[in-house]
Amino acid sequence: MTAPITGIEPPRLGEPYLLTPGPLTTSYAVKEAMLRDWGSWDDDFRAMTRQMRTMLLDLLGEGGDAFDCVPMQGSGSFSVEAMLASFIPRDGKALVLANGAYGMRSAQTLEYLGRDHVVLNKGDYLPPRGEEVAQILADDPAITHVVAIHCETSSGILNPVEEISEAVYAAGRKLLIDSMSAFGAIELKVADIRYEAMVSSANKCIEGVPGFGFIIARKTELEAAKGNSHSLSLDVHAQWAHMNKTGQWRFTPPTHVVAAFLEALRAHKEEGGVAGRGGRYARNRDVMVAGMRELGFETLLKDRWLSPIIVTFFCPDDKSFIFDRFYELMKEKGFIIYPGKLTVVDSFRVGCIGQMDEHIMRQVVTAAKESLDVMGVADASPPALALEERAKLAA
Amino acid sequence: MTAPITGIEPPRLGEPYLLTPGPLTTSYAVKEAMLRDWGSWDDDFRAMTRQMRTMLLDLLGEGGDAFDCVPMQGSGSFSVEAMLASFIPRDGKALVLANGAYGMRSAQTLEYLGRDHVVLNKGDYLPPRGEEVAQILADDPAITHVVAIHCETSSGILNPVEEISEAVYAAGRKLLIDSMSAFGAIELKVADIRYEAMVSSANKCIEGVPGFGFIIARKTELEAAKGNSHSLSLDVHAQWAHMNKTGQWRFTPPTHVVAAFLEALRAHKEEGGVAGRGGRYARNRDVMVAGMRELGFETLLKDRWLSPIIVTFFCPDDKSFIFDRFYELMKEKGFIIYPGKLTVVDSFRVGCIGQMDEHIMRQVVTAAKESLDVMGVADASPPALALEERAKLAA
Repeated sequence: MTAPITGIEPPRLGEPYLLTPGPLTTSYAVKEAMLRDWGSWDDDFRAMTRQMRTMLLDLLGEGGDAFDCVPMQGSGSFSVEAMLASFIPRDGKALVLANGAYGMRSAQTLEYLGRDHVVLNKGDYLPPRGEEVAQILADDPAITHVVAIHCETSSGILNPVEEISEAVYAAGRKLLIDSMSAFGAIELKVADIRYEAMVSSANKCIEGVPGFGFIIARKTELEAAKGNSHSLSLDVHAQWAHMNKTGQWRFTPPTHVVAAFLEALRAHKEEGGVAGRGGRYARNRDVMVAGMRELGFETLLKDRWLSPIIVTFFCPDDKSFIFDRFYELMKEKGFIIYPGKLTVVDSFRVGCIGQMDEHIMRQVVTAAKESLDVMGVADASPPALALEERAKLAA
Repeated sequence: MTAPITGIEPPRLGEPYLLTPGPLTTSYAVKEAMLRDWGSWDDDFRAMTRQMRTMLLDLLGEGGDAFDCVPMQGSGSFSVEAMLASFIPRDGKALVLANGAYGMRSAQTLEYLGRDHVVLNKGDYLPPRGEEVAQILADDPAITHVVAIHCETSSGILNPVEEISEAVYAAGRKLLIDSMSAFGAIELKVADIRYEAMVSSANKCIEGVPGFGFIIARKTELEAAKGNSHSLSLDVHAQWAHMNKTGQWRFTPPTHVVAAFLEALRAHKEEGGVAGRGGRYARNRDVMVAGMRELGFETLLKDRWLSPIIVTFFCPDDKSFIFDRFYELMKEKGFIIYPGKLTVVDSFRVGCIGQMDEHIMRQVVTAAKESLDVMGVADASPPALALEERAKLAA
């Protein structure tokens, strides 16, 4: 290990870095904020909730006062379900833009909800484009809402939400964004991109610990959401109305996780907000991808589609490469990586988010090299099939 | 403050005790367990989930192997909703036994779910009795499930779930128990009381921090629950099947909260399990109630109905008593109490659960006395109306 880097706190001895799309490695200060108990009914905690909502709304930039922030207990997927059920009316129809697990999960959620929907399924990673969306909307006037995934962590692709938004509003429909893994590191300023609502969660780019998500939505949509939800617990309108009236969450909040998140928001602001945070993650990605390519690894995506969140690499063609062994070797060296989700070829993923910087990412590359050496993998190049797969994607 | 008591860790300097039905005061060791990060996909965390489920099932005693434990992200109410939606089939009909806010919340949840149901509403605190349940079930053969609240914290009453269970199964129906605030301190051994499923949460009598709940259900019911749920996130069958197959939660778990809960379970076992924990809480209640009665305060409930979880006191008749002022004075002295929920007369509540023992409870009484003195309340006796109200309840 090198000396600690200014502003980045290394995890304690023996604790591996989480190179995953979250839960991720958080600062010690974030975790220390959990070392006391709060009464959820008490003024002190109400003030914490208020501050958190304000700080999140600040990230929207100019025009953000037309929006409000509604935290929701549970994992990020709970917030996605809450958003879909609350903002798509029961007689609405959704177009889901899917290119991976999270898009398909939104479609599955709508299936549970019994909300009419169609799916544009682009497979493992190909991006849904503005012109495709425009065509589908032109062909099907019943569609009222479009659901887009900002960064699809199945592949690590950063989907073109700006051109999608333009197509959606040009056709007079409404956009809902799952920005789970992107918000806080990639701008979603309401002056630059139009949408009705978005969700993210505590344990992604703001670098808190897991336990709740949040929905940021236009106030007019929040008003109109009354009566839409299928679920008492996940009713965004009810949570919003109660919170604005009493300052409290309707049901027990994860008090300690909220305290940690407030500390994380403070650090996020200090780092320079979305630009500062996103800049560090982009450097993490660039250093790590360059190093891995030097070892012979190839990324699934061409550069223009690589997010600064998580990167998919093809597994080497070499028969000596066994992912489970690679995982264990990397873990022994202090780095937890993530298995891939591609259906066609074997792959794995390396995250760029959390309390890590480019110095750590260089160590990741060194650990990968040493792990290959132990396995006796001389060349990390992928099979020909993988490169054929990648050729499907525009540069 | 007296010297620290063996086995009970006082909160840090300046941090008030939470005399509430949860979130409650937890030990420092429980909070310290949150000082690292885990990958939710990693073996280490899977082992933690496995151990937690096993330790919870151990609390059921003999016959517990017919049950399984399914943790669920979100607050306790999320787990209640998950239980109701998963175990009451879409063509089923529920009888909800309500005597306070939590019974009414179950009814409201069924309203959202569109599940047929009737409510036996006993008002603010009167207990639903076995013979009433038997009569309703005899009169309405369409009822398939009965929903009971174990300890209704609105009033603090411990409902007679054993006689309710007997009535339910004598009529060939099924029982679901919301044991949110009781499980871990009051026995629910499956050899002593029959039920199909129950829920509780991390931040109640096991003394963890808030962030998830858990459903303990008969395996045959878990199998049969497939396809019942209205919600992807809250689908107990899907969570159970996925967890048993992969060892992982379906969606991001609140990893730190789980780590804290494991530490809390360890301490719970060390204290002597349900008997030891329940014994301490009963002493807390007895000492606190005796002291408060000496000051002139009266409990809403007669002794046989008082739970060792939380106790409702009538507000004094004296015009100098103002609850908000009393709350602030108690908070200044280091104790956060809880407002009452009675509709007929003013009341407040004092919790007996969390990292507190009888020595702390004596300090609570002293703080109450001093607060009355500051307000100039000479006599804490309630108005006549309050005592008339209490007379409705059998001794």
